[in-house]
Amino acid sequence: MRSCYACGRTATGSDAGQRCDCGEPLWFDTDPGDFEWPDRDGVWAFADLLPVERPPSGLAAVAGATPLVRTPGLDVDGARVHVKLEGTNPTGSFKDRGSAVGVAAAVARGVDTVGTVSHGNMAASMAAHAAGADLDCVVLVPADISASRLRRIAAYGPRIVRVDGDYGRLYYDALDLGPRAGVEFVNSDSPLRVAGQKTTTLELLRAFAAGEASGDGTGGDGTLAPPAAPDAVVMPVSSGGHASAAWKAVREATAAGLLDDPPRLYFAQASACAPVARAFERGEDAVTRLDADEVGETVAYSIANADPPSGTRALTATRATGGAVVAVDDDAIRDAQCDLAGAGLRVEPASATPLAALRTLRASGAVDAGEHVALVATGVGYGGDATTVDAETVTRAELAGALGVE
Amino acid sequence: MRSCYACGRTATGSDAGQRCDCGEPLWFDTDPGDFEWPDRDGVWAFADLLPVERPPSGLAAVAGATPLVRTPGLDVDGARVHVKLEGTNPTGSFKDRGSAVGVAAAVARGVDTVGTVSHGNMAASMAAHAAGADLDCVVLVPADISASRLRRIAAYGPRIVRVDGDYGRLYYDALDLGPRAGVEFVNSDSPLRVAGQKTTTLELLRAFAAGEASGDGTGGDGTLAPPAAPDAVVMPVSSGGHASAAWKAVREATAAGLLDDPPRLYFAQASACAPVARAFERGEDAVTRLDADEVGETVAYSIANADPPSGTRALTATRATGGAVVAVDDDAIRDAQCDLAGAGLRVEPASATPLAALRTLRASGAVDAGEHVALVATGVGYGGDATTVDAETVTRAELAGALGVE
Repeated sequence: MRSCYACGRTATGSDAGQRCDCGEPLWFDTDPGDFEWPDRDGVWAFADLLPVERPPSGLAAVAGATPLVRTPGLDVDGARVHVKLEGTNPTGSFKDRGSAVGVAAAVARGVDTVGTVSHGNMAASMAAHAAGADLDCVVLVPADISASRLRRIAAYGPRIVRVDGDYGRLYYDALDLGPRAGVEFVNSDSPLRVAGQKTTTLELLRAFAAGEASGDGTGGDGTLAPPAAPDAVVMPVSSGGHASAAWKAVREATAAGLLDDPPRLYFAQASACAPVARAFERGEDAVTRLDADEVGETVAYSIANADPPSGTRALTATRATGGAVVAVDDDAIRDAQCDLAGAGLRVEPASATPLAALRTLRASGAVDAGEHVALVATGVGYGGDATTVDAETVTRAELAGALGVE
Repeated sequence: MRSCYACGRTATGSDAGQRCDCGEPLWFDTDPGDFEWPDRDGVWAFADLLPVERPPSGLAAVAGATPLVRTPGLDVDGARVHVKLEGTNPTGSFKDRGSAVGVAAAVARGVDTVGTVSHGNMAASMAAHAAGADLDCVVLVPADISASRLRRIAAYGPRIVRVDGDYGRLYYDALDLGPRAGVEFVNSDSPLRVAGQKTTTLELLRAFAAGEASGDGTGGDGTLAPPAAPDAVVMPVSSGGHASAAWKAVREATAAGLLDDPPRLYFAQASACAPVARAFERGEDAVTRLDADEVGETVAYSIANADPPSGTRALTATRATGGAVVAVDDDAIRDAQCDLAGAGLRVEPASATPLAALRTLRASGAVDAGEHVALVATGVGYGGDATTVDAETVTRAELAGALGVE
């Protein structure tokens, strides 16, 4: 059964809409009952909290189970950093979690064709999972999509439709046309996708609860006991679907009695396109769409959503958990991306926004020294390479000298 | 303690060489004793079989734990295909397994600087893991390395030395100069790297033993029971380090009484550079270096090693397990890569060679219908995008028609 977080109305049936009559997005109701933490990660380790069972084969059977890395070198003035590396999903981003659940549900219900509206990670993920389940897939992309992104999506063989016009409205076009066209659109905040995406947060809560998260990571006498839960989680927010899913995870873990002290949920946006942060800062009840002249370019293009369909739900989530929404500028994002690479973690710019946001939050005192903070690095992206390279060139005969051998 | 698989000699001490006096590579002795399968994957789940303990933090703490995907759509004339997706490691390839163990050992022994000889996956992996442990890293690359590969390596901030001269000999230069330069070179088949890399195979054997590998994956009445072990494993061979590690894993699992019927180990090479396949086909006892005029270009450049330092060990492994070494041409590799993408699995060309090889092996009858075969897709690579894109363009108003809505 699906319900609305905002007004409590419920919707049933496979053809019920993805949004409530009140305008807000629906999500699946779950009764965590006496749910207990599984002994491992992976989307399907949490099957008891999902609306569909693990498929017997194909890519959708193996999403998730990403590592949580303690990175002392990235600590922010005493705040201890753990990074959830979502880029190690099969197609390189957290989107695989929702695609897996969406595709599994489509297969279970005998749907032939799935689809999505995306020009990046979600498009590639959906196309891959559909291919893995032998389903047809339709991807709606903007007409001006770059050739390189188009090639990445096309690798999996979906039908690609470039749509000329207001890209932000395609989300609603898809919801309208999907049922009539026989296409199950698993968009950014569809109930199925949110169900899959909550496993990002369930996994990191499980790892902390199981004592798998490192203390201070320095070893020796100074090693702290592993914390039982993170004090805060910081993740990027774009459509608000993943942010909503994090809130769902925290609610379910709390309802199951598995989380005594729920983490604060912080969301990061790029300053150039920050409708959720604007609403948070202004104390507004709802997120409103940015006008074209309020949107700028940003390196974090993956999260530049001027009209987030689950923006208000994300706003509600951060307030309900005592968090905040933080906008960070491109210089701060680039610095954070560079520092993450310097700790061995190569992520796309959007995935560096949580570290940039944590620096802001630590400076303002919203996060304290000694707190454990989980940053969700949502995707590996396919940028992140060095722009300048400092390399020397020697001959084999000169190599010994170059290495300091006498 | 390290020993030679070929002559049985042993070597001790941290400064003992990586190769035996007989010329063959060393590996770590292990006493599997009463080792039992852990209940999860990851390099450090197999710590009891490794020469060093899991570090408390950093990237090296989280390598491995890659998914095993049952892909019925890729079955080869009744031979059932499972794909081990090594591209989901933190830097996108199986190399992270060996880098993790190499870096952990360096930290444990107080070594300041690690290094490697590579211009691809291993260089990026080593640089990332060194960065994650705050170690210095030296990467020796050929002088003519492409700018894009150089930028990928440089993202992690290692010292990069381009060496002009015979690239194949740099492996031996590094073994010679490393101890004198204070650099611990963790090259393609170093004992530490082989120890880490054996966990690829240990993980897939564990998954089969635990009943996690799907039967025929079609569900319903026809579903077969999950097999307890693969009948065969197929992986690319380049230096021979990963292939040797697969053999080590099979030997250890067998010695621990965990594997009644060990899988045959098959190795795949690109026809344009196939010294191990040549030696196998000729029935020779040792792999000899290809001359320059015996080497051609191949899309599978990651595995084009004309002088594999563990080539003879890989040859021995395949004979000892009843396998074979198969050379496949670029057309077969491209077809396999395309078919893998069509199942949702995007891999670099080198990682498509096992599927191409399986097709050859099935056609020749070396692999039977009904057998379960695990293909090791070693890395995601950063190619694999579609070269041509078939996309239509419509306006928003035309979208309904494009989706077949009346």
